Amino acid sequence: MPAIEKEQGEQRIVEARKRLREKGGDALVLSPGNNHYYLSGNPEKQVTPRHTFFILPVEGEPFMFLSTNNASNVRESSWINTFVTWDDSDDPVDRLADAFEEYDISDESTILVEDQMWATFIKDFQEISDFEFELASEVTMPLRRTKDEDERKTIKEAASIADEVSEIIRSENLVGMTENEVAAKIDYLMRKRGAEDTAFDTVVASGPNSTKPSYTVGQRSIQSGEPVILDFGAQVDQYLSDQTRTVVFDGEPPEEFIEAFEVARKAQEAAIDAVEPGVQAKEVDVVARSVIEDAGYGENFLHVTGHGIGLGIHEPPFLMSGDYVDEGNEIELQPGMVMTIEPGIYTEDWGLRIEDDVAVTQSGCERLSNSSHGWRLLE
Amino acid sequence: MPAIEKEQGEQRIVEARKRLREKGGDALVLSPGNNHYYLSGNPEKQVTPRHTFFILPVEGEPFMFLSTNNASNVRESSWINTFVTWDDSDDPVDRLADAFEEYDISDESTILVEDQMWATFIKDFQEISDFEFELASEVTMPLRRTKDEDERKTIKEAASIADEVSEIIRSENLVGMTENEVAAKIDYLMRKRGAEDTAFDTVVASGPNSTKPSYTVGQRSIQSGEPVILDFGAQVDQYLSDQTRTVVFDGEPPEEFIEAFEVARKAQEAAIDAVEPGVQAKEVDVVARSVIEDAGYGENFLHVTGHGIGLGIHEPPFLMSGDYVDEGNEIELQPGMVMTIEPGIYTEDWGLRIEDDVAVTQSGCERLSNSSHGWRLLE
Repeated sequence: MPAIEKEQGEQRIVEARKRLREKGGDALVLSPGNNHYYLSGNPEKQVTPRHTFFILPVEGEPFMFLSTNNASNVRESSWINTFVTWDDSDDPVDRLADAFEEYDISDESTILVEDQMWATFIKDFQEISDFEFELASEVTMPLRRTKDEDERKTIKEAASIADEVSEIIRSENLVGMTENEVAAKIDYLMRKRGAEDTAFDTVVASGPNSTKPSYTVGQRSIQSGEPVILDFGAQVDQYLSDQTRTVVFDGEPPEEFIEAFEVARKAQEAAIDAVEPGVQAKEVDVVARSVIEDAGYGENFLHVTGHGIGLGIHEPPFLMSGDYVDEGNEIELQPGMVMTIEPGIYTEDWGLRIEDDVAVTQSGCERLSNSSHGWRLLE
Repeated sequence: MPAIEKEQGEQRIVEARKRLREKGGDALVLSPGNNHYYLSGNPEKQVTPRHTFFILPVEGEPFMFLSTNNASNVRESSWINTFVTWDDSDDPVDRLADAFEEYDISDESTILVEDQMWATFIKDFQEISDFEFELASEVTMPLRRTKDEDERKTIKEAASIADEVSEIIRSENLVGMTENEVAAKIDYLMRKRGAEDTAFDTVVASGPNSTKPSYTVGQRSIQSGEPVILDFGAQVDQYLSDQTRTVVFDGEPPEEFIEAFEVARKAQEAAIDAVEPGVQAKEVDVVARSVIEDAGYGENFLHVTGHGIGLGIHEPPFLMSGDYVDEGNEIELQPGMVMTIEPGIYTEDWGLRIEDDVAVTQSGCERLSNSSHGWRLLE
């Protein structure tokens, strides 16, 4: 059963076509992935070099290009009616050339391809004709940036699953367990609660590993008295959640950690308070960063304050300001945008990060993740 | 600590350069992924649109192109000494253009890019110059196709983890549990035993879902008397295993299933017996297919007999013959190749598949997966 209604899908196609025309493009060509799903309802991912594309010509009917074997599968989830198929005995590139000809996608055409499309397919297109390539995100990301009610509900559901698991993990003393095993346990508990997958590779960064903002997981065993960063999310109907808690499973952490933890909490609260329609993305970053700078940890906040989430785990808007990057993000927040707020403080000995998901409302924002924030084990 | 020794890595680079020269290429340009890892030792994956490349010019020193923030991380795992870095305040594409100039990669150059490189990077290269593009797999796959002793040992370790978990899963009656939850349990048990990840999305295909050879997992609950296909593998030091068992957790399956199960078993045994150096890949497929055809299930074997495994889950050699595809694979098996042997039979009501990993030896092959094969629950 498709998670997206046919009518809603068709409306998305109308919007996409309008933007495609504005951009001067002749066709959107989307290999499986988030943009493909958003416009066709087919949730499959590109895992083998199989030729599957959703193609939206600027004039004429949108169609799926795919293998005959795969067609019945895709029909179950997609609202697209026109299928152009290839068989095991065909050369898919020849069939694609025919389809392009039939749909007036020619030599002179500019095609906007999925940003993550594999090079092997780009080479196939180059074999067919001398297309001008642009990236599909120019058309799709402005549409995907604000989420409708159904999308927000789904993200909230994904956030609730992560919340529940967070409370369970934080009620047990996991000292002695490896990071990898804790991550596996988190993933299991999320899927047991109906998550169809994890939102991304679950992060369990203990002790010295917590000092690296982009660390994922390893075979290190968790020790007493050390901070452990737990950063994870659930996938529900293709939509993702993303939260971080920093905990100490046993013993007493360094004094400075306790102090810095309160600073990050205040920075997060202030940033969440600042989120409302009309505010520029960079202003939210400035708010969080100021609290941390005022407390003397300015040099220790090593990443941006947040990023949009939805079908992708890093989407616009990016909450970043000129203090961290050359140019801040001047985009204005709008109702329906969903994003993370995740200040962090990293020293040479330990690191910490607190992250929640929020949705911009008409007057402010709604928190989508609500589990306990403190670093102490829950009783 | 790098899983691959520096010396071994350098030897791979010598071989790759030799093939690059034979192909008339001027440089290999590899974004993160299996080929990048194979030649540089850096295990990171492409998850964000960050410019990270391992570049091997046909003359001159190989180098890593990456962000300054990421450099210390990559130094820990890579044997590459030359780093060209970009900062947050740089335009990475400008820096890349400079690097290309410095290393004599010019207008006239043919660059062989990672087959799965994202379109966004191809567009960046096109901005720099009018390169001729070819695919890196033409250089790397012939090298990766036979595995050395260390690689085979690592795959065997990954296969043993899957074996252990298979025996555990098959000793419990999981009727009533959803496919998704069984998959989550399998994944947890593999990671608990030291797998750094799953080899691919674990398949739990129950009852009607077992009829679809490419089904992964869903929210359906397992029922009594029905076949369940369990297809999974572990990742150890980046290398993968892949095995399938078809089980009935409770009750009695259809008579025809029991009969067909024995046919698939015989087909698998015959195919494994046929694996030895000098045999063409397609001949192994013919052997398995003949057993199944002779028993009257020729139309029900819907995929190829097997595929190579290693860093990737579907690598050459592909064990396929003219009965299934237009042209069979005439490549001759060589000592060191590692592959799956996985005949299956699919009807309208149920499906089954039995899959093990084998490594070609000097005189035949060694089984790398050894857990019980029968469909009945283990006592």
